[in-house]
Amino acid sequence: MAGAGAFAEILDGEAYKYYSDGEWKKSASGKTVNIVNPSTRKTHYKVQACTQEEVNKVMEIAKSAQKAWAKTPLWKRAELLHKAAALLKEHKSPIAECLVKEIAKPAKDSVTEVVRSGDLISYCAEEGVRILGQGTFLVSDSFPGNERTKYCLTSKVPLGVVLAIPPFNYPVNLAVSKIAPALIAGNSLVLKPPTQGAVSCLHMVHCFHLAGFPKGLISCVTGKGSEIGDFLTMHPGVNCISFTGGDTGIAISKKAGMIPLQMELGGKDACIVLEDADLDLAAANIVKGGFSYSGQRCTAVKVVLVMDSVADSLVQKVNAKVAKLTVGPPEENCDITPVVSESSSNFIEGLVMDAKEKGATFCQPYKREGNLIWPLLLDNVRPDMRIAWEEPFGPILPVIRINSVEEGINHCNASNFGLQGCVFTRDINKAMLISDAMETGSVQINSAPARGPDHFPFQGLKDSGIGSQGVTNSINMMTKVKSTVINLPGPSYTMG
Amino acid sequence: MAGAGAFAEILDGEAYKYYSDGEWKKSASGKTVNIVNPSTRKTHYKVQACTQEEVNKVMEIAKSAQKAWAKTPLWKRAELLHKAAALLKEHKSPIAECLVKEIAKPAKDSVTEVVRSGDLISYCAEEGVRILGQGTFLVSDSFPGNERTKYCLTSKVPLGVVLAIPPFNYPVNLAVSKIAPALIAGNSLVLKPPTQGAVSCLHMVHCFHLAGFPKGLISCVTGKGSEIGDFLTMHPGVNCISFTGGDTGIAISKKAGMIPLQMELGGKDACIVLEDADLDLAAANIVKGGFSYSGQRCTAVKVVLVMDSVADSLVQKVNAKVAKLTVGPPEENCDITPVVSESSSNFIEGLVMDAKEKGATFCQPYKREGNLIWPLLLDNVRPDMRIAWEEPFGPILPVIRINSVEEGINHCNASNFGLQGCVFTRDINKAMLISDAMETGSVQINSAPARGPDHFPFQGLKDSGIGSQGVTNSINMMTKVKSTVINLPGPSYTMG
Amino acid sequence: MAGAGAFAEILDGEAYKYYSDGEWKKSASGKTVNIVNPSTRKTHYKVQACTQEEVNKVMEIAKSAQKAWAKTPLWKRAELLHKAAALLKEHKSPIAECLVKEIAKPAKDSVTEVVRSGDLISYCAEEGVRILGQGTFLVSDSFPGNERTKYCLTSKVPLGVVLAIPPFNYPVNLAVSKIAPALIAGNSLVLKPPTQGAVSCLHMVHCFHLAGFPKGLISCVTGKGSEIGDFLTMHPGVNCISFTGGDTGIAISKKAGMIPLQMELGGKDACIVLEDADLDLAAANIVKGGFSYSGQRCTAVKVVLVMDSVADSLVQKVNAKVAKLTVGPPEENCDITPVVSESSSNFIEGLVMDAKEKGATFCQPYKREGNLIWPLLLDNVRPDMRIAWEEPFGPILPVIRINSVEEGINHCNASNFGLQGCVFTRDINKAMLISDAMETGSVQINSAPARGPDHFPFQGLKDSGIGSQGVTNSINMMTKVKSTVINLPGPSYTMG
Amino acid sequence: MAGAGAFAEILDGEAYKYYSDGEWKKSASGKTVNIVNPSTRKTHYKVQACTQEEVNKVMEIAKSAQKAWAKTPLWKRAELLHKAAALLKEHKSPIAECLVKEIAKPAKDSVTEVVRSGDLISYCAEEGVRILGQGTFLVSDSFPGNERTKYCLTSKVPLGVVLAIPPFNYPVNLAVSKIAPALIAGNSLVLKPPTQGAVSCLHMVHCFHLAGFPKGLISCVTGKGSEIGDFLTMHPGVNCISFTGGDTGIAISKKAGMIPLQMELGGKDACIVLEDADLDLAAANIVKGGFSYSGQRCTAVKVVLVMDSVADSLVQKVNAKVAKLTVGPPEENCDITPVVSESSSNFIEGLVMDAKEKGATFCQPYKREGNLIWPLLLDNVRPDMRIAWEEPFGPILPVIRINSVEEGINHCNASNFGLQGCVFTRDINKAMLISDAMETGSVQINSAPARGPDHFPFQGLKDSGIGSQGVTNSINMMTKVKSTVINLPGPSYTMG
Repeated sequence: MAGAGAFAEILDGEAYKYYSDGEWKKSASGKTVNIVNPSTRKTHYKVQACTQEEVNKVMEIAKSAQKAWAKTPLWKRAELLHKAAALLKEHKSPIAECLVKEIAKPAKDSVTEVVRSGDLISYCAEEGVRILGQGTFLVSDSFPGNERTKYCLTSKVPLGVVLAIPPFNYPVNLAVSKIAPALIAGNSLVLKPPTQGAVSCLHMVHCFHLAGFPKGLISCVTGKGSEIGDFLTMHPGVNCISFTGGDTGIAISKKAGMIPLQMELGGKDACIVLEDADLDLAAANIVKGGFSYSGQRCTAVKVVLVMDSVADSLVQKVNAKVAKLTVGPPEENCDITPVVSESSSNFIEGLVMDAKEKGATFCQPYKREGNLIWPLLLDNVRPDMRIAWEEPFGPILPVIRINSVEEGINHCNASNFGLQGCVFTRDINKAMLISDAMETGSVQINSAPARGPDHFPFQGLKDSGIGSQGVTNSINMMTKVKSTVINLPGPSYTMG
Repeated sequence: MAGAGAFAEILDGEAYKYYSDGEWKKSASGKTVNIVNPSTRKTHYKVQACTQEEVNKVMEIAKSAQKAWAKTPLWKRAELLHKAAALLKEHKSPIAECLVKEIAKPAKDSVTEVVRSGDLISYCAEEGVRILGQGTFLVSDSFPGNERTKYCLTSKVPLGVVLAIPPFNYPVNLAVSKIAPALIAGNSLVLKPPTQGAVSCLHMVHCFHLAGFPKGLISCVTGKGSEIGDFLTMHPGVNCISFTGGDTGIAISKKAGMIPLQMELGGKDACIVLEDADLDLAAANIVKGGFSYSGQRCTAVKVVLVMDSVADSLVQKVNAKVAKLTVGPPEENCDITPVVSESSSNFIEGLVMDAKEKGATFCQPYKREGNLIWPLLLDNVRPDMRIAWEEPFGPILPVIRINSVEEGINHCNASNFGLQGCVFTRDINKAMLISDAMETGSVQINSAPARGPDHFPFQGLKDSGIGSQGVTNSINMMTKVKSTVINLPGPSYTMG
Repeated sequence: MAGAGAFAEILDGEAYKYYSDGEWKKSASGKTVNIVNPSTRKTHYKVQACTQEEVNKVMEIAKSAQKAWAKTPLWKRAELLHKAAALLKEHKSPIAECLVKEIAKPAKDSVTEVVRSGDLISYCAEEGVRILGQGTFLVSDSFPGNERTKYCLTSKVPLGVVLAIPPFNYPVNLAVSKIAPALIAGNSLVLKPPTQGAVSCLHMVHCFHLAGFPKGLISCVTGKGSEIGDFLTMHPGVNCISFTGGDTGIAISKKAGMIPLQMELGGKDACIVLEDADLDLAAANIVKGGFSYSGQRCTAVKVVLVMDSVADSLVQKVNAKVAKLTVGPPEENCDITPVVSESSSNFIEGLVMDAKEKGATFCQPYKREGNLIWPLLLDNVRPDMRIAWEEPFGPILPVIRINSVEEGINHCNASNFGLQGCVFTRDINKAMLISDAMETGSVQINSAPARGPDHFPFQGLKDSGIGSQGVTNSINMMTKVKSTVINLPGPSYTMG
Repeated sequence: MAGAGAFAEILDGEAYKYYSDGEWKKSASGKTVNIVNPSTRKTHYKVQACTQEEVNKVMEIAKSAQKAWAKTPLWKRAELLHKAAALLKEHKSPIAECLVKEIAKPAKDSVTEVVRSGDLISYCAEEGVRILGQGTFLVSDSFPGNERTKYCLTSKVPLGVVLAIPPFNYPVNLAVSKIAPALIAGNSLVLKPPTQGAVSCLHMVHCFHLAGFPKGLISCVTGKGSEIGDFLTMHPGVNCISFTGGDTGIAISKKAGMIPLQMELGGKDACIVLEDADLDLAAANIVKGGFSYSGQRCTAVKVVLVMDSVADSLVQKVNAKVAKLTVGPPEENCDITPVVSESSSNFIEGLVMDAKEKGATFCQPYKREGNLIWPLLLDNVRPDMRIAWEEPFGPILPVIRINSVEEGINHCNASNFGLQGCVFTRDINKAMLISDAMETGSVQINSAPARGPDHFPFQGLKDSGIGSQGVTNSINMMTKVKSTVINLPGPSYTMG
């Protein structure tokens, strides 16, 4: 159970502690932040409202812990990560429980998130052993005019202190996808969890604590954005920021200065359906892609662009599947659960009302109870409707009918986002040509957009982000090149 | 003109000299080998019949020239190769003339072969600068139980003397695809050209001579296989053999011992045509793939496996295109020209007669004049006919009608060859699944088999060869790894 | 001659034009910016003072030109770059002349800069053909729980419009090291040259013009920083900034937002000399490293940290070599020439005066005439002097005597810069351990710091920059990953 | 205990069974082969004398098992290997016991061999997941004249059936270093263990059996070389041979044909000691390198080449350490234990007698009891003595005094072997130059030759072998490239 058993020490009365210097602590502020359960709309958990001084302390410790950690053999770093992965899987239940209560994620999916996170940590550990253990060895005589008198050894070195800021929708998985690469690469890590998801993160961090990582290498501070948000992101002790979330990311990037950034800020992933597509496959992917976790996913299908000639048929198939979606509390594993907050619900409702006024076809009646919004397919959406361009981050999916492939591509490329896209067609030529034409970080052919498997590259173009993720790319991103050049007194050629 | 102008010095009376120690020489044997023009069936050129002693000399020089060459900066090696490439292109006419006379290659294609060879040399030079100039730098603490006390620098080092044996059908291009990687990698090279194609090769080698490569680095010996064939391939001075040709390769491999081998020995490339294929595209590729240079190509389409339901239509389209093929002398750029020798013609005729007896459908009448064989499509070929399995290396193409994809794949995989294959289908899923299922080194989707572009990997499975070619793979193949390990007195971590 | 012959069209009266839309143009501002010759301290050239509107136009064109350019085959892009490289080398004299007059670089070195730039362009072209032509192909079943149903193809795609801002000290070479990677990678490029160096850059750009690049792909705008500086770096049309220079870089990075940055902002490169060092070698490198181009180099030796026991001997050797340095005008190839501006001279003088007051030993008398400052070694410098930490960017070199290796490393690592460093020792263990311990982007063992050869990685830590340079790293930096995922209906294993 | 507990089923009476089709079997031959304990010189174990028919059966099963295995997800293959690794470590005691009895390896080292083998398997599993899961993705427009109409996907595919033949000295570790890469790469494996070491191998194979690998994927046949030796190596069902051992390897390579070979055949590793060397470090490494496991190691130091001026001092230091070596039975963890066989002892004695006759200085008296030979340093060895060139594979180490570095390098390079070498010097320049000059697969600077850590490349030049080993290289070696080329109807540029 959350906050009990192995996790008892992270709880102080009714408030969860924060993690600093290898210990669970109460904030000197004496204040806490409430975490509201999206289903009940009542406070479910409390976390510490850390102070700027506590952040300073965390940064200071992170810096010195990193120095020692960078001298730890790669296989030992990996060994500790494997331990953390095993502990995370072992404690999947209490952590999943937090996810259910904090972000209303269906119970089963919550467990999956934790387990998948364990796999990611292990994969990352082994990948890092290889990436960090291998550099390049260059000789000077490749370049015109040079003899072979210089041997250049390059290696990947840690950046220092990595600040990780995951979003509410995958607080554990998206935290871990930043923590594991940072650590295997020799960095220390400061985690600022989202408010909704903070308690899940604290439990997850405790698994790293139990695994025996050195003091201060990982820290987790909670608190109010207004108090410690900018303070963290602009802190001179930070050497890298890995952020997943919304518009805040753009603001962060504008203040960050010469710090490597890895940002993933959302998308408006289009699903283009051609005339020769397998419509059953497309419909299944649209429903899964559009409504999983109530559409609260960066890579959710957020607009369907279907050729007019097959649109009726597709919409019918999608509606048939939407009708089967269960709606209700996450504890009962319903497909559609309450969205994360009241402000989010209101924002979604605003998009729906706008579409209504402008004449979109409602395939289902609009229904909302508290934060629970029933799944809704909006057909005949036109470019003048907000829903054609904005991310609802809820169970609302617009369908735009197109008359040519170009029309679909143009709509997709006109977006300020460029995360993923997908196309359904049987034709190999069209598949490749459309994929090339879509200005998004990834294009899925005959499947819904998806972040995983976690070793695949994952990146957004335009306002969707900077830097590429996925295990390998994240590790690389959290390192910097260092060169040692051996200068010889005369030319030397191996075997020459 | 061949043997004239810049090439005057390679000719002695009516016999071409061989190239050793940076000079053009007459053999002490006093004997020559005749080269018969396939079109006229008369001796057109003569080359030296080198002795074993001359081979010994060449090997000895090659060894010492290599030592110095391996100490030449990479950019200088590349510079010389760029010069040779430019000279080859400059002298494309006389070299192409030799190709026309020696192997009856259509005049235009002969020019293309030379020009493409120049491009290959240049590409190879730049690729080698990079491959040879970059190694890996490994640290010891990746492996469990080790501290970071060992730094391992690995580089690619030359093998020594490379023996190159190209076949008659692309004597210049397939020689150059062995010479350029060998040289940029720091090896010396001994070329044994095919009898048919020897004079083209001698002209090509002269371009390297004119480019100013060091004495003895490249040699070219001509002569009788019975006298110097095994003597060369089993010579203790040889450190690598790169061979393209027929069955001889298997014999060579059995005597070679611990010497890296790169062998490409032919294929029976299948063309699978599915029901949803673009039949015009398929027909065009079958005719181009099957009849270019009269079918005398390793990667020629050598059997068509077409779904019965579209077979009539496909055969009709292929026949229409076959009807337009011109037949005659290479000098007139005819599509179909005499095959390389009388024994080759007779072998092809044997396959045709076997098919006739066993009931294949002749889409065209069989016609032969000397070495000139008219293009022939054999429909309704069955597995009991020799043409279903053997390589004609002539303008004869069998069609087998199949009733399932599996039948096609099974026929393809039952071959002892495994060079390339191709499949025509619009369906992306079928394309990928069939490509995976075909046991050949490469599978072309919606195009005829092909060796190029030359930076693509090119390799045969089973009896089709060992090792992978293509610029990058050939360079790698002609090198060996060498490691230097720096052992430190204590652990040292960069930036730790 | 500058502005004449092939370059006549870039000059309008006495003012040089700017380059936009494939044409040389006068600014609508009607204004020009003066370029003062550091030697004469008089205006030598004039360039256009472009307006914000003209910048907008350039950006707009750059965007559309990029779209077409990205569809140009890699080998064609390379071919154009090779042409530009040849033209640059052909016109080395007039361009070198500009360098002499604008930045008082010795005449010989000016020619070298241009020639080396040509080599860099060619190397970059071939490197880019390979980097852009090769991606990775990943399968899904590497990751736990996945069957092989997903094939992921990743490629490197262009970023869009790259803004290049080179510094005054290598205006041609450091411009070209941004232009060539940007172009081969499929980007368009906008160049903002430094005021001092602008005319050299305009000549260099004209070589690209003559090579026949498409209209609008490259532009070069000149003008006042106050008018178009921030306007350019904050322009929404910019997709990447590559900057080399001073503190301005930090300001730029703070406003840049989610745009990939490549910044190199200077250094305080230390030269550590151990007791077992070859003191003659060290002295030669200190003089070359410290005084070449009057110390106006990012990678100049900027502080010598020598073990006390060998300090007297080293200083003596260095002084002997300093005594032989010639001082005077760049036209006469003097070793020491006027520094770039009066404000620069004054800044240097300030550092010298501070050292004097605090008791540094002057190995030579301080001497200055206009912008010409005589070479000066300051011995017995202590950490409380400004010269111990600040970059003079002039011919002034401080020596700090140390009593242990650690003291040297600590001084080096206490700097806010982290560009390069060097260590002189014969001992392999010390060499490797000290290299690992120094917190700089590169460490040279037994040679002065250096940017080249240009295919070596080049990067600064801390305030010295973000991103890694060198041909390969720059090309990679100017691209982004894009993935295409082919989803199959069932598992498919090659050869399975 | 060997043959008991979990291993009971592999023993039948007093003879160990062989492993075929997932079962432990008695040979139909009814015959067994005796394994003599080197210490007691009495038969200690018996193994099956398999028949050619049984080999045929094993090959047939291996072929079909491989087909299914190649369709197993990479992570599942890795999971099984991790299980086998864990089982191996769990059962280290009984396996180590076999090593002690079969090959007289000191008890502690025997345990280490097994544990290290487990680490190797796990490392290999993770490495293979990455190597097999990633290919390259090439586009056609890199090569002159091509538009981007071809996408080439290359992957690494299994070779088929791998035949592994390890030597007696590391029967478990060197078997596993072939088995693990073969399996993770999708191959099936047939193991032919050395007679001495066969029972250790059978126990090790049982750990793979217990891990649950599919039937027939791994087999282990024992028997007489005269009966099944050539039969195995020339078997048409074999697609790859990985052999470690002696001269037999050359014979195998001459019959192998077009089959990828990985061979490691011994060496005469030189240890060059310069005047500036740390003589204590050198002496320690010479004793460890020369006498560990009584010198029965491919990478043992087999000749010391020391500069005359420091030779006396070095020899004195080495002798002091030799005096401390314990001599006796492996069960008591003596440093020097009986060599593997009487014929081996006799061969060693022959080398000693030859050296005696020719005047070598005996630093210790020569002493032998049965197969137990006391450690012996032979000083003042000259090139006319056999011990200067031949491998004793026993505790006998020759010292040659040299007067120049060149003399040392020349002696080293005159050997027909080229496995490893080492050099002791403090000087970074000499270290690198000598490493480059030595014609061996690896050079160790300031440490004795060594095969590990196992992810480092390991290879011999000349008669020392073909192919490179080490985890990564072995996996690569046991795969072949396969390409799929997608041909598009027109050019397509990502993001163009």
